[in-house]
Amino acid sequence: ARRGYPEAVFCAGKTPEQVGRIAAAVRERPDVTTLFTRADDQHAAAVLAALPDAAHDPDAGLLAWPPAPPDPTGGLVVVLAAGTSDLPVAREAHLTARYLGRESELVVDVGVAGLHRVLARVDLLRRARVVVVAAGMDGALPSVVAGLTSAPVVGLPTSVGYGAAFGGIAALLTMLNACAPGVSVVNIDNGYGAGHLAAQIAAPQDGVPS
Amino acid sequence: ARRGYPEAVFCAGKTPEQVGRIAAAVRERPDVTTLFTRADDQHAAAVLAALPDAAHDPDAGLLAWPPAPPDPTGGLVVVLAAGTSDLPVAREAHLTARYLGRESELVVDVGVAGLHRVLARVDLLRRARVVVVAAGMDGALPSVVAGLTSAPVVGLPTSVGYGAAFGGIAALLTMLNACAPGVSVVNIDNGYGAGHLAAQIAAPQDGVPS
Amino acid sequence: ARRGYPEAVFCAGKTPEQVGRIAAAVRERPDVTTLFTRADDQHAAAVLAALPDAAHDPDAGLLAWPPAPPDPTGGLVVVLAAGTSDLPVAREAHLTARYLGRESELVVDVGVAGLHRVLARVDLLRRARVVVVAAGMDGALPSVVAGLTSAPVVGLPTSVGYGAAFGGIAALLTMLNACAPGVSVVNIDNGYGAGHLAAQIAAPQDGVPS
Amino acid sequence: ARRGYPEAVFCAGKTPEQVGRIAAAVRERPDVTTLFTRADDQHAAAVLAALPDAAHDPDAGLLAWPPAPPDPTGGLVVVLAAGTSDLPVAREAHLTARYLGRESELVVDVGVAGLHRVLARVDLLRRARVVVVAAGMDGALPSVVAGLTSAPVVGLPTSVGYGAAFGGIAALLTMLNACAPGVSVVNIDNGYGAGHLAAQIAAPQDGVPS
Amino acid sequence: ARRGYPEAVFCAGKTPEQVGRIAAAVRERPDVTTLFTRADDQHAAAVLAALPDAAHDPDAGLLAWPPAPPDPTGGLVVVLAAGTSDLPVAREAHLTARYLGRESELVVDVGVAGLHRVLARVDLLRRARVVVVAAGMDGALPSVVAGLTSAPVVGLPTSVGYGAAFGGIAALLTMLNACAPGVSVVNIDNGYGAGHLAAQIAAPQDGVPS
Amino acid sequence: ARRGYPEAVFCAGKTPEQVGRIAAAVRERPDVTTLFTRADDQHAAAVLAALPDAAHDPDAGLLAWPPAPPDPTGGLVVVLAAGTSDLPVAREAHLTARYLGRESELVVDVGVAGLHRVLARVDLLRRARVVVVAAGMDGALPSVVAGLTSAPVVGLPTSVGYGAAFGGIAALLTMLNACAPGVSVVNIDNGYGAGHLAAQIAAPQDGVPS
Amino acid sequence: ARRGYPEAVFCAGKTPEQVGRIAAAVRERPDVTTLFTRADDQHAAAVLAALPDAAHDPDAGLLAWPPAPPDPTGGLVVVLAAGTSDLPVAREAHLTARYLGRESELVVDVGVAGLHRVLARVDLLRRARVVVVAAGMDGALPSVVAGLTSAPVVGLPTSVGYGAAFGGIAALLTMLNACAPGVSVVNIDNGYGAGHLAAQIAAPQDGVPS
Amino acid sequence: ARRGYPEAVFCAGKTPEQVGRIAAAVRERPDVTTLFTRADDQHAAAVLAALPDAAHDPDAGLLAWPPAPPDPTGGLVVVLAAGTSDLPVAREAHLTARYLGRESELVVDVGVAGLHRVLARVDLLRRARVVVVAAGMDGALPSVVAGLTSAPVVGLPTSVGYGAAFGGIAALLTMLNACAPGVSVVNIDNGYGAGHLAAQIAAPQDGVPS
Ligand SMILES: Nc1ncnc2c1ncn2[C@@H]1O[C@H](COP(=O)(O)O)[C@@H](O)[C@H]1O
Ligand SMILES: Nc1ncnc2c1ncn2[C@@H]1O[C@H](COP(=O)(O)O)[C@@H](O)[C@H]1O
Ligand SMILES: Nc1ncnc2c1ncn2[C@@H]1O[C@H](COP(=O)(O)O)[C@@H](O)[C@H]1O
Ligand SMILES: Nc1ncnc2c1ncn2[C@@H]1O[C@H](COP(=O)(O)O)[C@@H](O)[C@H]1O
Ligand SMILES: [Mg+2]
Ligand SMILES: [Mg+2]
Ligand SMILES: [Mg+2]
Ligand SMILES: [Mg+2]
Ligand SMILES: [Mg+2]
Ligand SMILES: [Mg+2]
Ligand SMILES: [Mg+2]
Ligand SMILES: [Mg+2]
Repeated sequence: ARRGYPEAVFCAGKTPEQVGRIAAAVRERPDVTTLFTRADDQHAAAVLAALPDAAHDPDAGLLAWPPAPPDPTGGLVVVLAAGTSDLPVAREAHLTARYLGRESELVVDVGVAGLHRVLARVDLLRRARVVVVAAGMDGALPSVVAGLTSAPVVGLPTSVGYGAAFGGIAALLTMLNACAPGVSVVNIDNGYGAGHLAAQIAAPQDGVPS
Repeated sequence: ARRGYPEAVFCAGKTPEQVGRIAAAVRERPDVTTLFTRADDQHAAAVLAALPDAAHDPDAGLLAWPPAPPDPTGGLVVVLAAGTSDLPVAREAHLTARYLGRESELVVDVGVAGLHRVLARVDLLRRARVVVVAAGMDGALPSVVAGLTSAPVVGLPTSVGYGAAFGGIAALLTMLNACAPGVSVVNIDNGYGAGHLAAQIAAPQDGVPS
Repeated sequence: ARRGYPEAVFCAGKTPEQVGRIAAAVRERPDVTTLFTRADDQHAAAVLAALPDAAHDPDAGLLAWPPAPPDPTGGLVVVLAAGTSDLPVAREAHLTARYLGRESELVVDVGVAGLHRVLARVDLLRRARVVVVAAGMDGALPSVVAGLTSAPVVGLPTSVGYGAAFGGIAALLTMLNACAPGVSVVNIDNGYGAGHLAAQIAAPQDGVPS
Repeated sequence: ARRGYPEAVFCAGKTPEQVGRIAAAVRERPDVTTLFTRADDQHAAAVLAALPDAAHDPDAGLLAWPPAPPDPTGGLVVVLAAGTSDLPVAREAHLTARYLGRESELVVDVGVAGLHRVLARVDLLRRARVVVVAAGMDGALPSVVAGLTSAPVVGLPTSVGYGAAFGGIAALLTMLNACAPGVSVVNIDNGYGAGHLAAQIAAPQDGVPS
Repeated sequence: ARRGYPEAVFCAGKTPEQVGRIAAAVRERPDVTTLFTRADDQHAAAVLAALPDAAHDPDAGLLAWPPAPPDPTGGLVVVLAAGTSDLPVAREAHLTARYLGRESELVVDVGVAGLHRVLARVDLLRRARVVVVAAGMDGALPSVVAGLTSAPVVGLPTSVGYGAAFGGIAALLTMLNACAPGVSVVNIDNGYGAGHLAAQIAAPQDGVPS
Repeated sequence: ARRGYPEAVFCAGKTPEQVGRIAAAVRERPDVTTLFTRADDQHAAAVLAALPDAAHDPDAGLLAWPPAPPDPTGGLVVVLAAGTSDLPVAREAHLTARYLGRESELVVDVGVAGLHRVLARVDLLRRARVVVVAAGMDGALPSVVAGLTSAPVVGLPTSVGYGAAFGGIAALLTMLNACAPGVSVVNIDNGYGAGHLAAQIAAPQDGVPS
Repeated sequence: ARRGYPEAVFCAGKTPEQVGRIAAAVRERPDVTTLFTRADDQHAAAVLAALPDAAHDPDAGLLAWPPAPPDPTGGLVVVLAAGTSDLPVAREAHLTARYLGRESELVVDVGVAGLHRVLARVDLLRRARVVVVAAGMDGALPSVVAGLTSAPVVGLPTSVGYGAAFGGIAALLTMLNACAPGVSVVNIDNGYGAGHLAAQIAAPQDGVPS
Repeated sequence: ARRGYPEAVFCAGKTPEQVGRIAAAVRERPDVTTLFTRADDQHAAAVLAALPDAAHDPDAGLLAWPPAPPDPTGGLVVVLAAGTSDLPVAREAHLTARYLGRESELVVDVGVAGLHRVLARVDLLRRARVVVVAAGMDGALPSVVAGLTSAPVVGLPTSVGYGAAFGGIAALLTMLNACAPGVSVVNIDNGYGAGHLAAQIAAPQDGVPS
């Protein structure tokens, strides 16, 4: 694996056959964790045919092999999802961080329209080494969270919404303009990227693979 | 005045001479309040030459004649400004509502990065018949406010910010996608429009002029 | 229900199973009205399986339970649809206002290309406490209506049109730039939001729930 | 002149010296009318130095030489300006049509927010062979006018407005999506183009130069 | 029919049942020509069930009843299509002009990449009272045509192309910026609008219906 | 200071007088570091009048008081600038990280057009706890850097460039789509935000202020 | 064939029947190579029914008849694909160049995230007369390649990616802003255009057909 | 010079002092040609102070030292400018090609609105090894030129135009969608890039520096 982290296979745009061939090759390298991301049902079937004991999270569209995530090191990665519709992307981030070796907690339905639900989580936020915040529509949650914690916040805009949500652009722009410092942003729906980055940020100070 | 409300003269794009001529004509109609909006220093001088006792708020770029606002009727208009830079636009909304006959309160520096400042105002928000929320950059404040009150919220995006704020587009999109119901939006920096609308919403139930 | 208004379940993006589970839970809370919005045929079937006596408007994609709307209080909500294609969104606004406790009238096919149809409705417009105007394509109707009434106008841009209509963006921009004051705008096709806001604006002066 | 119409010199982006040199050359061709468009004060001075008897309309930024427009032939060109700020562009259209040989009438301040002002002009509209409609902000006027006349309507969007007017894009889109048939559109602020096209449309049936 | 022209029924977005009901009503008004535009196979079947002798052009998605176009009056409408893919939209323009009472000629495959094909048509272009030019991709043909004729040119951008053609936006912008005067533009793929406008431009000088 | 970090005063959009007043108030709080960002020459003079010993970096438009940065703790923040024109923004990031308590190194002119200059810095990159990469135009450098290190990369798009650089949008999009994982992005030209975030990422594992 | 190069038939948007008719006509002209581009399975079947010995590359969606490419003349065309998903478009470019008479080499999976893979190809790059670089997502590869060779680089942005990749716009903008000189760009996914252009650039100095 | 070509110093965004310092350093390397691009009057003065015999073209904003261009080798570079306003950018391309060692001819005012002017140049076009076509507004000229020659065409969009020209975006899109093959595009107003690329394309087959 490049730089000590798992390999990731991006399944969207590949045929199940192509993904199946990659999965067969992966079987030869049990020392490296491989993640299959954006896997639909057919991709998953192809992976499981080659790697029957792979871990599979259908909501997140993610498979992992070997199935057991590493023992966690480094700091805590907290993943917040503003609404239930943001959950698949948030799970992708959460599981990626977990398979990259971090402890991770996932909390759902903490949108800014119900502030008490955010405020109820302040203790958790303050234990985090990094917080990933998935939100679509107005994308306002990272601004609020960044004001409540000194940990870095990874804004994860989702394509949830319609009309002037423009497939996640509105949320993306909101997060780029967050009025509290300490927020950076990844691509729309890029749960894998957010989880990967969070794992890097929360990596143990020493022993970072290069 | 059309439909019982003041006349408004939009000064931007008019020469001081043109505005001066309008002001001279206004002198003949003391029964109708006239607002001069988006007036820079030269516009203001031209108005004051013709109407020396006009009220003038340089920050808001607004002049009014006759200078005294009407006695307030109807409900309370609360205007929130997320940051100090949003103040000129917020004042334009506040004064417009006041000259259209409403009681109005203006509160500044209640951005979502410091939630306690918003939460400290919940009592005021709950007394409002309508809340105007001026915010630039991430434009996240209306979402939070709408979650705290059952009054209608008028989102007033401002051009405050830089880069991907795109002169207020980011804030505009955020507000259009507010995840709490009860938010509608006016044009970027349109303090006059927000104040006018708020005055209409908070108008006394009977006696609305048509 | 938050702040005294019905709960709304946004069905788009949820599976019929998920919606069905929510409907089953709703059965336990007959004291609160629940609206299911953006429900397609399968969502509707799932809701009706759990709540057989729910009211269902297939055009608007809306279900309500308990089925009877409350007795109306407050002012009149008038909803205009520029063309027949704007009708589903307009109905969603109309029914939402009705279930939030307002009297509401819906008028269709009053586009600006046939001014006489608009002018024939001036009496109705002047009885309204608030007017919701649904229009796609050029989105010009709210400008015309705002010039005919002193009630606040909620612009509801629809995605009706093609080419440079850009899925409702053209109508949205038109409404944001309405040359008559008193217009604000909600997201494209957001009939629920427009109806909710209209109900808040037309709420009885006292007794607003907080 | 190409195809029997006047030559036009677009001054914007040329130095006064360049424009002056062209004006000197024009003196040699008194048989062809030459228009200088988008001429600021310095351009105008340079033209007038070479052609002292040129006609000059500073508001429209237009000069013409020889100064007398031709006797009108063909049909009537009506030019409407929605607001006073649209006047410079509307005058450019009006004068261009006039110098291309058409009778032309210019009417100002007939925005859709005051429908009675439009309706008061229906007789004039019905005498027109073609109507040019200049409007900024919401650009809604052409839709209304096209519903009132069977003459072709040339939509002339202007850059009047701010915020989400986007320098005329909002008005341009509105006009492209006009819900009444019979509207076409030229570039933002392109008064010369609108006037030229109108003159072509209203040209006498025979004797069109080729 | 409003103002003496045929009625048009825009089928896209209507169900076959709705269109069938309109067609049945149309049967009662044989004195007015009715056009059904954007009709797919199912829409067409519904129309033909009610109006078995309606004229039907499947390529253009157009039906007309009564089926015979009026005897032509006024000037000639020439419709050019840059490529074969622009043909459906061009036919819609051509047939609309024909049913609105004009003589019309349609010429295909005259793109600017093969100038000789355009130049071979100069005689036809010079006989036209108005030229409709349908083009996608670079949308360059109207600029070339406008340089070859003194007739007004109606630019009809089509959604033909991919990538940076942006569904017709590239062609639309090209036409709005045509470097020859005398070009105006209608919405992307709006063959009906272009044909309607062309018929108005080429209408006989007298006897224009109002 | 909120959460243990310095206060920042954003000078752009404030008058020198306003900034001067803030600086005078700051004098009362020597225990908290205050940064003045986006300060032009006049802002700087106003700050220095009140705080004569403030540190001032004119290129970065930054002032700090008290002038001495804290002793560094935590990991190393490396800041790369693709070209000399990116230097002001990169210095803003570098100094912000330094005043928030991190060791920081700044390297200039390592654009991807000269890969050897990037490759010559691999050792430094691998010592970094976080890398900030400032780049305009194509914004390609973060993709390359992320492939060379396992540290998190903060993409800092700058407005350097012209034409289709769109004031930094091109660089912003490039970075959001970085083909190597481990990149997140802040707003265009937001050196302060990048430096603040980098300081948070490189904070010592314990003792993070909350 | 126009100007000595093969004819190309763009199948997308044509029915299999239309394509089949063209293929039948092509059989009469064996002296000219004809390429069928963007051919899906049904298009291919229609071509092969008329021209059974046509060469067919399903990945590239390309058929050629007569099937044998000409003997290569001129310089070497190197085609690089950043990732496997860019392969179909890259193959289209590669085969087009080959059928237009050039020697061509295709290299896959040389993205900037793994610089060693690019650097391993420097020898090949330096033998090229022109390099086509296909890349989606961040589109950063052409900038890197242009820094490694003095041959002209044809940037071929692909629609590979999601979210803020905007269907290839991000890659397109990156390439237009390449910080190394010597890069030009064709339309998104336009493998045919890139291959055609490359063949023209690498044409033998003499004997270019006109 | 990297890869045997001149060095280029991009003056825009540099102070005259910075440019002067670079010019002084350049004096030490008379064996390499250095170009100063985008130099305004002050930049030019600073360069000429250090290098008094530098060649200076104020229109193109270009200086070169040593002043004499190399003896031309390779093929002919033809540069076309659609209008006079495109001349500065076209001259930048022309001179860059000349200083990179190519023969180059520059032709102005050959816009598509006057086809005869283009057609009069066909002989020159057919002698070219590569054609650079500078055009703003509709950007239609490259499509026409590519249909007339088998040489590769470099589209050079300029920011000439207003309104929906969007500072060159309209021309850029037109060129990306050119309906004739053989066109690629550089950034808006990037005369240097176009000339550099043209020189690479027209380079002598052997002896290309690497
Ligand atoms: N600040 C403002 N923003 C938007 N519209 C305004 C503003 N001030 C006045 N208006 C509107 O512009 C109209 C007056 O425009 P004018 O006749 O150009 O002065 C008024 O009737 C208002 O509706
Ligand atoms: N293809 C078309 N494109 C744009 N507008 C159309 C089209 N066909 C009909 N229309 C317009 O749409 C109106 C009818 O719309 P509807 O009542 O929804 O059928 C007609 O009066 C026309 O003005
Ligand atoms: N250069 C900058 N860019 C973006 N945000 C900044 C910058 N400098 C300061 N800030 C933020 O703006 C806030 C201060 O804004 P203000 O109260 O208007 O001075 C600080 O808390 C920072 O979070
Ligand atoms: N007019 C220009 N437009 C775009 N890039 C340029 C221009 N002039 C020079 N360059 C590029 O910018 C680099 C020099 O940038 P700099 O070091 O900032 O002077 C050169 O290597 C060129 O590749
Ligand atoms: Mg924080
Ligand atoms: Mg609320
Ligand atoms: Mg009104
Ligand atoms: Mg009409
Ligand atoms: Mg013409
Ligand atoms: Mg990395
Ligand atoms: Mg190179
Ligand atoms: Mg060619």
